[in-house]
Amino acid sequence: MIEWEPAVQKGAVVGVFDSGFGGLTVLRSLMQRIPGASFVFLGDTARLPYGSKSRRTIARYAAESAQFLVQKQQAEYLVIACNTASALALDAIADAVDVPVLGVIEPGAAAAAGHTKTGNVLVIATEATIQSHAYAAACRRQGLHGVEKACPLLVPLVEEGWIDHPVTAEVARVYLSEVLEEARQAGQTPDTLVLGCTHYPLLRSVLERTLATICGPGAVEIVDSAEATANEAARQLGFRSSLGRGGTPSIRCFATDSVEKFERLGSRFLGIPVGKVDLVDLGG
Amino acid sequence: MIEWEPAVQKGAVVGVFDSGFGGLTVLRSLMQRIPGASFVFLGDTARLPYGSKSRRTIARYAAESAQFLVQKQQAEYLVIACNTASALALDAIADAVDVPVLGVIEPGAAAAAGHTKTGNVLVIATEATIQSHAYAAACRRQGLHGVEKACPLLVPLVEEGWIDHPVTAEVARVYLSEVLEEARQAGQTPDTLVLGCTHYPLLRSVLERTLATICGPGAVEIVDSAEATANEAARQLGFRSSLGRGGTPSIRCFATDSVEKFERLGSRFLGIPVGKVDLVDLGG
Repeated sequence: MIEWEPAVQKGAVVGVFDSGFGGLTVLRSLMQRIPGASFVFLGDTARLPYGSKSRRTIARYAAESAQFLVQKQQAEYLVIACNTASALALDAIADAVDVPVLGVIEPGAAAAAGHTKTGNVLVIATEATIQSHAYAAACRRQGLHGVEKACPLLVPLVEEGWIDHPVTAEVARVYLSEVLEEARQAGQTPDTLVLGCTHYPLLRSVLERTLATICGPGAVEIVDSAEATANEAARQLGFRSSLGRGGTPSIRCFATDSVEKFERLGSRFLGIPVGKVDLVDLGG
Repeated sequence: MIEWEPAVQKGAVVGVFDSGFGGLTVLRSLMQRIPGASFVFLGDTARLPYGSKSRRTIARYAAESAQFLVQKQQAEYLVIACNTASALALDAIADAVDVPVLGVIEPGAAAAAGHTKTGNVLVIATEATIQSHAYAAACRRQGLHGVEKACPLLVPLVEEGWIDHPVTAEVARVYLSEVLEEARQAGQTPDTLVLGCTHYPLLRSVLERTLATICGPGAVEIVDSAEATANEAARQLGFRSSLGRGGTPSIRCFATDSVEKFERLGSRFLGIPVGKVDLVDLGG
């Protein structure tokens, strides 16, 4: 991991990238922890979702997006606020730009290591993230054993706005029952669930209730990669005391498609209005 | 609509385009009705789904895809087997190529006109297709009144393979109850449901059961745009007697991403193995 001089304290530009809006949950955490920075967010909405595409295609899209943030928007530090791009394209992004790049996988696995007592963790994410086994590998590097589960329906449910819907609870029950059963058959007792997709924090309540119903209250606790990544970015950027530093962060958002949809849905993820979103053409 | 000399009878090339695999349901119907043709299918899987993107982006992607089929694969007739592209980009496609182009919207609305007795039809489709109101306009041209409903969760449910899953039945119940209530409040008595997305034929059974539960058996019948489009293509290409003509159709499939996924999922839509799928780079 590249260490970086904390120029951010003088108002430097932090680029945040996602295939869509989900990464705004990471931006939300970053704004709380690094209020002195200027944030430039790019959602590659014309080509989303990355989660069902191949490594080669994801790497090309993500590298083009990162270059936009660094070359056109002068980002001095990049946060890849997209689990799929972090899992499949972190090296391609690092090769494409000359600034430090932080993905969400390693911080998520490190946070799981700080939480688990049994050393057995569950990871839920998109199909592409799971197929890459990037979380399983990151867990191994932390001395943990991770059982991974693709949950392709959770992103569409969030985007449909069915956050507290009975259907979403049932879908969560199906997925979580399956991964818990798989862990049980492997003789494991997982006590931690990593949210390996930036859409999932919006489903935190329903996932907590579902886990409590299946395993008993508090038996499995949730770790959010978005929060863990924001903490790690703050640490790398010299904001060791994190929350409560002065200054008001500025944000500017770009999207490759559907600016209106971004403005409408984005606020749900950011927690505050995203403001005006600029359309950018990456030629794809 | 451009009339076309039936060169297909001498084995001409029919290009079929979709953003993904769903259009293989149209290809399946085309193969049954025009067995003498050679079919070239392109799924723009690197950029799917179109259903959540803007008109401008969809038009650009669809035009590039159509040009590939005509210029690189010598297609002499194009079927746009994608409701979203038909709704938002049929003019852009027709401008981009110099062969006849048939979309799925007009044949779907015409088939509804042949079925309905009340003149009130329901249309379910993706968000982009519904927002374009292309079906409502096509219904008006047929003297019908169409009530449209976006059902964004149905495509992910099909792609997850939850064809007969209780969750899918519940999602269908929510969507169909909402659109039926909307029609009721407008004083209408719909008797026909148009499947305005090429994924939906795979959910035909669950949709039929759901309609029977809500409205009573046979009260609302289903019209499939895929079948209607294949019938219209056969008519335009001079296959007026449709089914049962001699010859074995040849197919060749291209995808812009995830050839393995296409080969795996595609057979579900085509009903037979899709065979080898070739990767093509449209530069997007």
